[in-house]
Amino acid sequence: MQVLPPALERLIDSLARLPGIGRKTATRLALFILRKPPGLARDLATALSQLHQSIQLCSCCFSFSESDPCAICADPRRQADTLCVVEQSGDLLAIEKTGAYRGHYHILHGVISPMDGIGPEEIKVRELQARIASGTIKEVLIATSSTVPGEATASYLIDLLQHAPVRLTRLARGIPMGMDIKYADRHTLARAIESRSQAK
Amino acid sequence: MQVLPPALERLIDSLARLPGIGRKTATRLALFILRKPPGLARDLATALSQLHQSIQLCSCCFSFSESDPCAICADPRRQADTLCVVEQSGDLLAIEKTGAYRGHYHILHGVISPMDGIGPEEIKVRELQARIASGTIKEVLIATSSTVPGEATASYLIDLLQHAPVRLTRLARGIPMGMDIKYADRHTLARAIESRSQAK
Repeated sequence: MQVLPPALERLIDSLARLPGIGRKTATRLALFILRKPPGLARDLATALSQLHQSIQLCSCCFSFSESDPCAICADPRRQADTLCVVEQSGDLLAIEKTGAYRGHYHILHGVISPMDGIGPEEIKVRELQARIASGTIKEVLIATSSTVPGEATASYLIDLLQHAPVRLTRLARGIPMGMDIKYADRHTLARAIESRSQAK
Repeated sequence: MQVLPPALERLIDSLARLPGIGRKTATRLALFILRKPPGLARDLATALSQLHQSIQLCSCCFSFSESDPCAICADPRRQADTLCVVEQSGDLLAIEKTGAYRGHYHILHGVISPMDGIGPEEIKVRELQARIASGTIKEVLIATSSTVPGEATASYLIDLLQHAPVRLTRLARGIPMGMDIKYADRHTLARAIESRSQAK
C-alpha cells in the first residue's frame, strides 16, 4: 500500500537523484521541508527554476557565470597572462578561496578517462590550445586533482603543450598543512621527499 | 569579489538551510544540479512547489496526506481499535516498513521538551485524548524514540492515560537484532536483562 503521499514521494525521488543522497536522507530532507513553513520550499523551487535560465558558460574560461565574459575574465586587475587549468568549477572556487592566485582560469569540464569514454575531445582541451595560440598567455598552471584521471589529464596536457611558448607549471605535491608525518601515506611522503625545498 | 554567480549563490543558500547540509555540501549539490541538463532542476522545483499545495494533515491521525482522512485511516482492513503514537511522520514510515503493525496511528508532531519551550499543549496530546474519549480505541502503543525527550513524552502520556479505559503498551527495549552482546551499551543490556522473555 501507498504510505507516502504522491507529492512527497515525487520530492523524495528527485532529491535521491542528487549525489551522496540516498532514499533515507532524501526522505528525511523531504519531511523536514514539509514540516517547515512553505517559505523554504518556495525559495528552493525559485532558486532551482532560475538556475539554468540565468547561468551560462563564460565563452573565455568556461566557468559558470551570469555574464559573458565572467567576472574574473572581465576583471582588469587580474593577470591575463596566467591561466590556471582546473577540472571543474568547484576547483576554481577552492583556489579563489585561498586568495593566493590572481590570474585567469580555464575550466576543462571533466578529466580524460578512457574507461568512461571521455577523451580530450570531450573536455575543453581544444579551447585551451586556442587560448594559448592567441599569444597572450605566458604561464599555464595545471591544477588537476591528484587522482588517477587527474594525473592522466595533467600528463596529457604537458605532452600536448610541451612545445607551446608558455611556462608550464603544476601545483606542488607534498605533506598537507597540519598533517602529522607518521600519518601521511607513503606516496605523498615519497613525493614530499623528492620535491623537498631549500630551507635556508 | 563575487566568485559565484548570484543565481548559484541563492541555490546554495537555500540548500544550506536543510538539516545536515553545510555550505560545502550545498555548493557540491548546486554545482551538480548546474552541470546536469535542466530536467533535474525542473523536476525538483516542481516537486517543491507542489509539496505544500497538495499535502495536508489528516484530521484524524495528523499524518501528512493528500487526502483527508489519510489512506491508513480510511483503510477498512486496518484495526481501528489500536493506535500507535509516534513523534513524527518519519517514525510512521519506519513502522509501516516493518509490516508488523496493522492498526492506526497518532502523530504527535514533536516531543515534550521543556528546555525548548515545548509542552503537551504544543504537540497533539489533547487530540490523542479526544480520540481515546471517543470510545473506539482499545490499545494505545506508545512508540516514541528511546531518547531523553522521547522517554519524557512517553512517561507523560502514561501518567496522563493511566485511568483511560485502554490497554497502554510500549515498544520492547533490548538488544538490537544482529548485535554482538559485548558491543551493546550497558543501559541497553541492563534493560534486555530486566525485560528478559521466557525462552521455553
